[in-house]
Amino acid sequence: MKKSALSVTREDNFAEWYQQVIAEADLAEESGVRGCMVIRSWGYGIWERIQHLMDTEIKKAGVENCYFPLFIPLSYFEKEADHVDGFAKEMAVVTHHRLVSGEGGGLVPDAESRLEEPLVVRPTSETVIGQAMARWIQSWRNLPLKVNQWANVVRWEMRTRMFLRTSEFLWQEGHTAHADEADAMKEMLRALEMYRSFAEGPLAMPVIAGEKPENERFPGAVTTYSIEAMMQDGKALQAGTSHYLGTSFAQAAGIKYQDREGGQQYCHTTSWGTSTRMIGGVIMTHGDDDGLRCPPQIAPHQIVIIPMLREKDAEEDNKVLSYASSLQAELSALSAFGEAVRVHLDLKSEKASNKRWAWVKKGAPLIVEVGPRDVEGGNVAYLRRDRLYKDNGKPDSQFPARAEFVADAAAMLEEVHAGLHAEAKARLDRNIHRNVTDLQEFYGNSGKYPGWVELQWSKPTGAVLDKVVDQLKELKLTIRNVPVDAAPANGDCFFTGEPAVERILIGRAY
Amino acid sequence: MKKSALSVTREDNFAEWYQQVIAEADLAEESGVRGCMVIRSWGYGIWERIQHLMDTEIKKAGVENCYFPLFIPLSYFEKEADHVDGFAKEMAVVTHHRLVSGEGGGLVPDAESRLEEPLVVRPTSETVIGQAMARWIQSWRNLPLKVNQWANVVRWEMRTRMFLRTSEFLWQEGHTAHADEADAMKEMLRALEMYRSFAEGPLAMPVIAGEKPENERFPGAVTTYSIEAMMQDGKALQAGTSHYLGTSFAQAAGIKYQDREGGQQYCHTTSWGTSTRMIGGVIMTHGDDDGLRCPPQIAPHQIVIIPMLREKDAEEDNKVLSYASSLQAELSALSAFGEAVRVHLDLKSEKASNKRWAWVKKGAPLIVEVGPRDVEGGNVAYLRRDRLYKDNGKPDSQFPARAEFVADAAAMLEEVHAGLHAEAKARLDRNIHRNVTDLQEFYGNSGKYPGWVELQWSKPTGAVLDKVVDQLKELKLTIRNVPVDAAPANGDCFFTGEPAVERILIGRAY
Repeated sequence: MKKSALSVTREDNFAEWYQQVIAEADLAEESGVRGCMVIRSWGYGIWERIQHLMDTEIKKAGVENCYFPLFIPLSYFEKEADHVDGFAKEMAVVTHHRLVSGEGGGLVPDAESRLEEPLVVRPTSETVIGQAMARWIQSWRNLPLKVNQWANVVRWEMRTRMFLRTSEFLWQEGHTAHADEADAMKEMLRALEMYRSFAEGPLAMPVIAGEKPENERFPGAVTTYSIEAMMQDGKALQAGTSHYLGTSFAQAAGIKYQDREGGQQYCHTTSWGTSTRMIGGVIMTHGDDDGLRCPPQIAPHQIVIIPMLREKDAEEDNKVLSYASSLQAELSALSAFGEAVRVHLDLKSEKASNKRWAWVKKGAPLIVEVGPRDVEGGNVAYLRRDRLYKDNGKPDSQFPARAEFVADAAAMLEEVHAGLHAEAKARLDRNIHRNVTDLQEFYGNSGKYPGWVELQWSKPTGAVLDKVVDQLKELKLTIRNVPVDAAPANGDCFFTGEPAVERILIGRAY
Repeated sequence: MKKSALSVTREDNFAEWYQQVIAEADLAEESGVRGCMVIRSWGYGIWERIQHLMDTEIKKAGVENCYFPLFIPLSYFEKEADHVDGFAKEMAVVTHHRLVSGEGGGLVPDAESRLEEPLVVRPTSETVIGQAMARWIQSWRNLPLKVNQWANVVRWEMRTRMFLRTSEFLWQEGHTAHADEADAMKEMLRALEMYRSFAEGPLAMPVIAGEKPENERFPGAVTTYSIEAMMQDGKALQAGTSHYLGTSFAQAAGIKYQDREGGQQYCHTTSWGTSTRMIGGVIMTHGDDDGLRCPPQIAPHQIVIIPMLREKDAEEDNKVLSYASSLQAELSALSAFGEAVRVHLDLKSEKASNKRWAWVKKGAPLIVEVGPRDVEGGNVAYLRRDRLYKDNGKPDSQFPARAEFVADAAAMLEEVHAGLHAEAKARLDRNIHRNVTDLQEFYGNSGKYPGWVELQWSKPTGAVLDKVVDQLKELKLTIRNVPVDAAPANGDCFFTGEPAVERILIGRAY
């Protein structure tokens, strides 16, 4: 039987497997601070790659990065009633600005430093960016105004799960102001498409883009769209959202412009965001029982070279090191996905086999080992992380000539990417079910990972929608979205029996 | 008389001039949130350039980026007494995690959501990173451990000044753990040298690197070094610090390792940081009465092309646009400072002359204008931001052939850099005075911008040092540092008359 690098398999316990990948791949860990995680170097390196690639797309769209305050005065929230209702329950509140020694020698907030107006640690920045937009926009010439910020945000969470739901997380939030609804909707859909193609591209993570139902809208939004990815346990992960906010935030903050005729108009605004949650999605899309398989475009190192040193024969070690260094230089001169290939030479003082398994767990796409025999024969030994084992369960090491490996390396990285995407796409397609007539039966009897169900519905609102939502909730299901690419409706509503107007996706979700 | 783009000159009112550069160059603005600024797109673009270049140096030194929690439990601070004394006075404290509707309809912190242990918004992360290091380090094989984070930090400030002193600011903080003092000191000095060469390089800002006196040490540090830059008003700006922390943080957090002999030892730690404060330094080092002169390596756009469009003759406008676009492509293919040249085509709907002055105020190094006559003659018109005016006070526009301009552009960017650095270096050298015998007389009578004084001293400690510090304080002076490159002492202490052991720099400071 094949042995794998982790002690828990996905099949045994998916939730525990997820935690173990995070620990064993040095992605993150509990910080000791409630609800907050430490993002470790490999996890943060993945985030840096995501930031770099996403930021390039954001800038291409003419959006400018800025930075807005961490703290938001309470009064800003009070202005936008719907928004407050959505967020007021879970925010960190700063009430004092000084500590003093208390009784017993500990530290306590100084009562004399109580703030007149408490400050909220931003859960999102619509309100404070709205205030800035109101200062920056005077006339139609200033529109559209498109800004983005990379920042940390805080939403107090009772139950946390690393990368998926933490009190503090890192994200980007785009905020734009437009002259009219049409232009704002166009921007909202542009951001959605940017997220969709980013997920399918660098993350190799197939997603379904679509509109959220009324009950799942962002607090204060007129329309919310999302991208939804399918995890290996069949659950959905919302991996990015884009909102059309109408004029409600503009009215709250006074974002007005003079139109070409000299009249005063409220701007139409949008916001859109993605976060470190994507890393959770990548783990649960591509991970296997040996750890993470990191998509090459977001892998901090795409090729890792492990020199096999004996630490007894300095001359031999030097030959191996020099062979490894020149191999690194040669590989670094290659290009994959339009960028220089990222090659790491692992010089830690650790046994080569330990290093090999550490990189397997981290999911480096290509893991190369070079020892004295490779130097002599002009070869390399390598593992492809996406094809780790032979049929007999042994690691599938390859031993090509060095020149042959260098010639193939960039193409192999692109193959790893394509393979990861294809595997995930097949799983997504296979697990969307279109002929389900009884949700209770389906989700009760379909094994551990039943996937999603596509249904037709009449898009009910108000009390009828509430009833549908409650009915789904009993089965721990939610409406994920109305896929933009779904076939037109051609039947009756699954819930009301009325003529259907669109198709929706239903599933369990993170 | 020469007219300049700002309404206040440095000579008239340096503090107001500084604020005006920040406003007119779209660098930052007051946010409406106490002590916090909004960093606008040009300011944030400069910060992104600084981050990119500094991060490259940090990674080259084998330091890995991670991310640690925004919130630090009070108990972490209580463990390190000296550190607490230094910071306890000015921290934002989170005491509640929920808001509810209060009387009168406003929002108030929910009394039931009071935290058992208040959380401090990080003023710096030694304590929380120390906890992580204690988990990560077991043996000498794990050392040195070197991490860095890019983050926002908060230090409650009563009097704020944009970029120089704000309650929230952005920075990088490096934290390292070592087996012994010698290795930790080496790292501390490496970081200092990284900062020195970064300031002199990308920022074109000459600095003096040296050790801080005892009274100016980071809370809890054994040794603190800084780089000090001289602003145009003769004041000093501390632009980066590097600390050797001894084993005090290691003892507080339990950062121990097993040595080669099997014994348990405390690690020796360092920390080092630079922040958005550097942007304030760049403004006050290179700004002139027309706004910022942005050093080319950190300029988001190094060359800005303004097409002169009439908006009446579409055919002519198209020719100008096509000429400008191809010029942009040609210039973007050039390389300066080892990177591709960054060229921006300004297509805003705004008069060309307004655009030109906007870019002068922002300090784009080369500002190019192209109109129908340039298209016809195959020319460009350009301004060099470092040589804006002719002797007669008129803008010094040059009109070379396009090919000639393209051939010279990269070299001109390097010239702008060298010129800015040389100008600032001459000012720094000119304003360090070595023969001052009476500080009161010197600082009382030396005009507006007296600069710094280099003195010899006996390095007193305790009460004698306190007296020196108080005496300087009356003249609004502080000891900046003990320059690492200063000549050896060869006389008596300025303050005590005892034999001097080293030279110190004294000045007024931000």
